[in-house]
Amino acid sequence: MESQTLDPKIQLALEQYKALEEKIAHFVMIGGLLEWDQKVTAPKKGRAIFAKAIGTFRTEEFKLSISEEMGELLHILSAEDVYEQLDEITQAQIRERSEEYNRSKKIPAEMYRDYVVLTAKANDAWEEARETNQFGVFQPYLEKIVDYNRKVAEIYGYEQHPYDALLHQYEPGLSVAVLDPLFAKLRETSVALLEKIKKSGNKPSTEIFEQDYDVEQQKKFNTYFLPIIGFDMQAGRLDETVHPFAQTMNTGDVRLTTRYVENNVRSAVFGTIHEAGHGIYEQNIDPRLEGTALSTGVSFGIHESQSRFLENMVGRSEQFWTLFYPKIQEYFPQQLGHVSQQDFYRAVNTVQPTMIRVEADELTYNLHIMIRYEIEKAVIGGEIEVKDLPAVWNQKMHEYLGITPATDTEGVLQDVHWSFGGFGYFPSYSLGNLYAAQLLNTIVRELPDFYSNIEAGNFAAIQAWLKENVHQYGKLYTPEQLIRKVTGEDLKADYLVHYLEEKYSRIYSL
Amino acid sequence: MESQTLDPKIQLALEQYKALEEKIAHFVMIGGLLEWDQKVTAPKKGRAIFAKAIGTFRTEEFKLSISEEMGELLHILSAEDVYEQLDEITQAQIRERSEEYNRSKKIPAEMYRDYVVLTAKANDAWEEARETNQFGVFQPYLEKIVDYNRKVAEIYGYEQHPYDALLHQYEPGLSVAVLDPLFAKLRETSVALLEKIKKSGNKPSTEIFEQDYDVEQQKKFNTYFLPIIGFDMQAGRLDETVHPFAQTMNTGDVRLTTRYVENNVRSAVFGTIHEAGHGIYEQNIDPRLEGTALSTGVSFGIHESQSRFLENMVGRSEQFWTLFYPKIQEYFPQQLGHVSQQDFYRAVNTVQPTMIRVEADELTYNLHIMIRYEIEKAVIGGEIEVKDLPAVWNQKMHEYLGITPATDTEGVLQDVHWSFGGFGYFPSYSLGNLYAAQLLNTIVRELPDFYSNIEAGNFAAIQAWLKENVHQYGKLYTPEQLIRKVTGEDLKADYLVHYLEEKYSRIYSL
Repeated sequence: MESQTLDPKIQLALEQYKALEEKIAHFVMIGGLLEWDQKVTAPKKGRAIFAKAIGTFRTEEFKLSISEEMGELLHILSAEDVYEQLDEITQAQIRERSEEYNRSKKIPAEMYRDYVVLTAKANDAWEEARETNQFGVFQPYLEKIVDYNRKVAEIYGYEQHPYDALLHQYEPGLSVAVLDPLFAKLRETSVALLEKIKKSGNKPSTEIFEQDYDVEQQKKFNTYFLPIIGFDMQAGRLDETVHPFAQTMNTGDVRLTTRYVENNVRSAVFGTIHEAGHGIYEQNIDPRLEGTALSTGVSFGIHESQSRFLENMVGRSEQFWTLFYPKIQEYFPQQLGHVSQQDFYRAVNTVQPTMIRVEADELTYNLHIMIRYEIEKAVIGGEIEVKDLPAVWNQKMHEYLGITPATDTEGVLQDVHWSFGGFGYFPSYSLGNLYAAQLLNTIVRELPDFYSNIEAGNFAAIQAWLKENVHQYGKLYTPEQLIRKVTGEDLKADYLVHYLEEKYSRIYSL
Repeated sequence: MESQTLDPKIQLALEQYKALEEKIAHFVMIGGLLEWDQKVTAPKKGRAIFAKAIGTFRTEEFKLSISEEMGELLHILSAEDVYEQLDEITQAQIRERSEEYNRSKKIPAEMYRDYVVLTAKANDAWEEARETNQFGVFQPYLEKIVDYNRKVAEIYGYEQHPYDALLHQYEPGLSVAVLDPLFAKLRETSVALLEKIKKSGNKPSTEIFEQDYDVEQQKKFNTYFLPIIGFDMQAGRLDETVHPFAQTMNTGDVRLTTRYVENNVRSAVFGTIHEAGHGIYEQNIDPRLEGTALSTGVSFGIHESQSRFLENMVGRSEQFWTLFYPKIQEYFPQQLGHVSQQDFYRAVNTVQPTMIRVEADELTYNLHIMIRYEIEKAVIGGEIEVKDLPAVWNQKMHEYLGITPATDTEGVLQDVHWSFGGFGYFPSYSLGNLYAAQLLNTIVRELPDFYSNIEAGNFAAIQAWLKENVHQYGKLYTPEQLIRKVTGEDLKADYLVHYLEEKYSRIYSL
């Protein structure tokens, strides 16, 4: 459309811009493959050499997005009278690219270079601190990382809280003002619910998981259910890594990994379902967005909502196991042949406070996030100092979960995120749960057969709804716009709170 | 060393040149991975989109090697008084790069672009011609491809025969004048030996291969012997594809593929050994050459010599099967339990003229190459026309192998090479055999325990010799220099001729 009315000079700039965006999209695709390959297929001895090649490649990729050419084109196309003539997709591209371009340009090159060196060293220090169980080894590096992130917050700018500038990197538009009441409600109700659960006389038993489950059989079961729940195996793969992840090359090539543990059959099953949630999202983005920076999920939070929705709302539902329990029994007759479906269902929904976030259940998981959120906010805001983190951590663990880490390694040192400076990242995980519950509330209204569809193995109907309402749009809208468009309202804590209370009241006979 | 004496300006140019070469080497590494991934791991639906990304990437890669910067640096560093001050590795880099740079610069961009379009169409036409068994469908495209290659030969230049210019692309320094006598001798003696074999009363039976061999068992056997024969599994992988190949990312990451066929256990075994020959070569190149264009095999012919040496001279030897026959019997007790080692050995060394090159045995293989060599030379030299190719082909098949293709599909249309314009490529295969036999002659002299080492599974000694004499040098020397350095003389046909006569006289009691 714009091609008929635009000034020829603008038209030329538009074409150059689109070509440059496509080139960047191609580089991003290749970069994704390089990372995937290093983690999944590259033989050990070649990785160090290949890492240098990836460094060269990433430099070229980065140069494209901050090139003078890009700056000039964005300048031309962002001019108000030009921008308003562009179509929706191009406008969104320019919105996203300008954001990134401006952010990259604001940080002095030298400051960023020093930071890359710092985080590399910090990662080593973090590993050493974990091994020797001494927070002090990591502390000086973390202090510098915090300083950097405070500076970055000032450079990027914010309205109310410096932490807003960091949150914004992972969830555009998000702020402490929005998060505080959401998380406060979630935290308070979760702590209260956990108290009730602890006192319940009707606790599920997880003994059935304390058996050996043959890894080859696990692989067969995971490969069996993955396409059924909606992941297109012609447009993706499932491989094995120590840390499960999903990597998208393009909508026709989305690669998942999972982890098989002999004495933990749950690990692979829910890991696979979780990553499938990420993967199905990316497989179903509108092909019109291919070759642009919009052909990916909206934000970390919305992406996580898709993995959590599939893992928890679908994969931990009774109906899911009505469908798949007979099948998993077939794969593990000795381990599960004598276990009732109800006992299995309750076992995969056990609530049990643990020290480690990544092992947490659906309810206590958010409490782990609250601890990190509150610490990050306070440390970036200058209210607490890095040296006090272990004590603050342990105190909050005790307060929210009722347990206290015996060591820093199983406490404040457990996550890698701070060592690479990922302040603002953690809230995405709980945001994902909040979005997922709000989406569930909408989907069961619009698709009253939601649960019977799961039971019948008719995932197509559910995936079609998700595609129609979420997946297809890629990054066309902001998270706020999208959630309002789909659910008719802004993000609320009520849906997740209600979902958790209802679910666990049933399971624990509260 | 040069850094102490060179003029500062030259020194700067040298550093820039090395940085640019390293950048290109990184791009080549990544490009290799992209190709490998498309063939081995990429899911079906993502390949078309990824192919566009690869196109973008290849364009960037090509731009680096023909950049103005490269031209200027080569100009500075190639000046005689500068060049002679450089170390051996840098000189070789400049030799190789200048060669490629000049070749690329000589072909007008438009002419090359048209050719890329032509070969894409020609490949489709070739496939259609094969399906419909009509050479005529392919003929007009092949005529244009031949025209292009004739023009290219004129542009590149040659001393005696235009075909020399094409040979040179695959085997630097090679010419018709060198090849003609070598190939004539090989052809004549091979035809004569084949005649004798046909008349032998003591023919091996290949019935043992007409059984089903479980693919999973085949995989286990291939994975078992591959590291034993010298391939480092920490610096490589073995995967499965329809067409086996070896792809090098770097010396620490060399990836092989093989093909498993249920009713053909030989296919995977010798395919794996063959590709391992290529792979072991690349794994053992001197790490000092990493990050330069020298960190790969010398030429197509020398590369093929390493795969043929391992596949035939080692893998088809009696000693090899003294070592491995009990093991393959363990994997296939039903199929091979009752078969003697001697019968197995003779069966893997059967000579039988067949229509298809890629299925040919060690002796008749070269006769297939002779046919292609003679045709290519004549058609590029203008002595025969493309339309006459089917007739010439069939006549030569009859003359050398004593059989005549019933259709063009199993005759002149069988190979893909001409459809992508690979004139000059085929001779590499027989050159590989010639080099391999000449190397064998040297190694058994310098390593008298050669065959008993094989029998004892002591491949380390053999691989150490190959590394010391061939592998480590990468592309540091030209093929001519290398073969003279190792064997003390220029390439001769006598060694292969003798090897074949001796081997088959024994097997066929001639």
